[in-house]
Amino acid sequence: MNARTSGQVHIIGTGLLGTSIGLALRNLGVEVSLEDSSPAVVALASDFGAGRTLEPGDNVSLVVACVPPDVAAETISSALSRFPEAVVTDVASVKSSILKEVLNNGSDLTRYVGSHPMAGREKGGALSGRPDLFVGRPWVVAVENETSLESIRVIEQLALDLGATPIRMTAQEHDHAVALISHAPQIISSLLAGRLADADDSDLALAGQGVRDTTRIAASDPKLWLQILSANAHELLPVLKGFATDLAGVITSLEQVSSAGSLARLGKTLEAGNQGISRLPGKHGSRNTPYAQVVVMIDDKPGELARLLNEVGAAGLNIEDLNLDHATGAQVGLVELSVLPAIEAKLVETLKSNGWRLAG
Amino acid sequence: MNARTSGQVHIIGTGLLGTSIGLALRNLGVEVSLEDSSPAVVALASDFGAGRTLEPGDNVSLVVACVPPDVAAETISSALSRFPEAVVTDVASVKSSILKEVLNNGSDLTRYVGSHPMAGREKGGALSGRPDLFVGRPWVVAVENETSLESIRVIEQLALDLGATPIRMTAQEHDHAVALISHAPQIISSLLAGRLADADDSDLALAGQGVRDTTRIAASDPKLWLQILSANAHELLPVLKGFATDLAGVITSLEQVSSAGSLARLGKTLEAGNQGISRLPGKHGSRNTPYAQVVVMIDDKPGELARLLNEVGAAGLNIEDLNLDHATGAQVGLVELSVLPAIEAKLVETLKSNGWRLAG
Repeated sequence: MNARTSGQVHIIGTGLLGTSIGLALRNLGVEVSLEDSSPAVVALASDFGAGRTLEPGDNVSLVVACVPPDVAAETISSALSRFPEAVVTDVASVKSSILKEVLNNGSDLTRYVGSHPMAGREKGGALSGRPDLFVGRPWVVAVENETSLESIRVIEQLALDLGATPIRMTAQEHDHAVALISHAPQIISSLLAGRLADADDSDLALAGQGVRDTTRIAASDPKLWLQILSANAHELLPVLKGFATDLAGVITSLEQVSSAGSLARLGKTLEAGNQGISRLPGKHGSRNTPYAQVVVMIDDKPGELARLLNEVGAAGLNIEDLNLDHATGAQVGLVELSVLPAIEAKLVETLKSNGWRLAG
Repeated sequence: MNARTSGQVHIIGTGLLGTSIGLALRNLGVEVSLEDSSPAVVALASDFGAGRTLEPGDNVSLVVACVPPDVAAETISSALSRFPEAVVTDVASVKSSILKEVLNNGSDLTRYVGSHPMAGREKGGALSGRPDLFVGRPWVVAVENETSLESIRVIEQLALDLGATPIRMTAQEHDHAVALISHAPQIISSLLAGRLADADDSDLALAGQGVRDTTRIAASDPKLWLQILSANAHELLPVLKGFATDLAGVITSLEQVSSAGSLARLGKTLEAGNQGISRLPGKHGSRNTPYAQVVVMIDDKPGELARLLNEVGAAGLNIEDLNLDHATGAQVGLVELSVLPAIEAKLVETLKSNGWRLAG
């Protein structure tokens, strides 16, 4: 494969994102150097295949700062000085406060372009790095009046090399969007999970998938999120205040549950939730995932899933997504196959004629 | 397989839960009759294999009312009269308000036992029914002083026949638990999704997995949830008020982000979320899912997944869970295989020696 990115890329900070970027660029044959405040961490990322250490005489054309938000501006300004020919970007989840600080440092804004790849994993660290972490993900390219077109192009090429979709917006537009779509869900999830901290075990024993999904991201790193949320307080506050007002309305409705109009108001809140979720773009960018689902029951023993997929493959049918639900103590598992609607009927026919049991 | 349940089971209401119970009991050879306010719906469930219609001379020993909460008490009281020898249960998500109404109806409480199987799907209706919907799930058996031991035994045997784990608690204990573990997450998820209803498309384009997970259950049926939430207002209100107080604290911290102590308070909120989520029992009842994950990159073409699983099966290795992440536009997919930790090393070795590319 040919890389769009030319020249040497220097990555500062070899955690999950830095390592993933290094792995992906190395796969494309790009020269990658690595740097981290921890020598052990950079050695690990290097062993892992993400790049080599910086050497005298290296000619860096792009610097990617993959450091926590509280040291991002300092790292960016320092990189702009250390590598006077290079374009510099960062990958922090907030953009305005960092831009302001870089500006205050008197740095060259023509060569700085903020990035925010909308990708991550619950597990951090170099060992969690994956070359395809960014594939199919939006990659915000934060563009200001001062930014040179050439600098923008370099970062958009980087995003494309990593399989991401570059989206241009200003730092302020970015921070406004992520307050709603990322930062508010994070703190609301943490608050909801916080309610469980002192609960009785007997209450928690009834936990189902709903509470698990709504609280999953509450497992994220508090130190990192404290930096993100406080750096974006200005955009986050209106979202949280709107939420608080709506919540107060729900509490009032529930307190007056037998009075006229209360239930109607509560019903409207639930319907607004339906509307909100319907506006989320589909998992891979389209508004609605167009796949049809077919659920097959399989025996819980080695090779059964392979036999199933073998037969599906032999019929020339491509599986778009697959979920295996394996219940403890059950002798069967449920396999949910997602396929393009056009081949659903053929899939069902193939499975039935091969004796598979379909559920649902 | 031998059923623990003896005699004829009559199911009133053949939506998702009623149909699923019928399918599971029929699989065990239990005699099942069906009834629904809609003749078309009962015919569908019957065709689907969930049971037959009620006939003159039928001797019903257990009635399961699978109707919405607002008609549950009426259905239960009516069933206690119509089938004077039968034990009667229901599957509604609230228990105290229904119990109170059944009591007010002057019904025989020795033969009524409230149930709440902690299972469901986002899709309702008979066609979504699955015989193993309840496998591995908690099944609350709501027991009061008046309930006869024989009636309790009948419902616990039913739960066991369906593969569920019966958990005895009073109606009040149940409602207290589900307010925290189910009803609060539902309304919080709806409120969060409601914030998205009027958002700009450009903001929504940045949506990632976090906002999707936290809002997934906001897609649930507003009519059903309006009944559930309003019927459990008494237990739900303290949870929501506690949440509102915590949220107000977060808002204050973010407003005073540069003053001493503010960040520490916000950090404590995020840490409480970590603690809360760590207290949730594992997906299948154990506190932590003990599986090891191995991620394999596969080409996006028919048969690749089958080939992978074939080789894993041929090595005698059992897959406990599987997730396929298929990114649009990418030529590769990621398959996350979950296995018992004891066989992780062998799996990795097998995959590598067969030339598979491992990620992460």
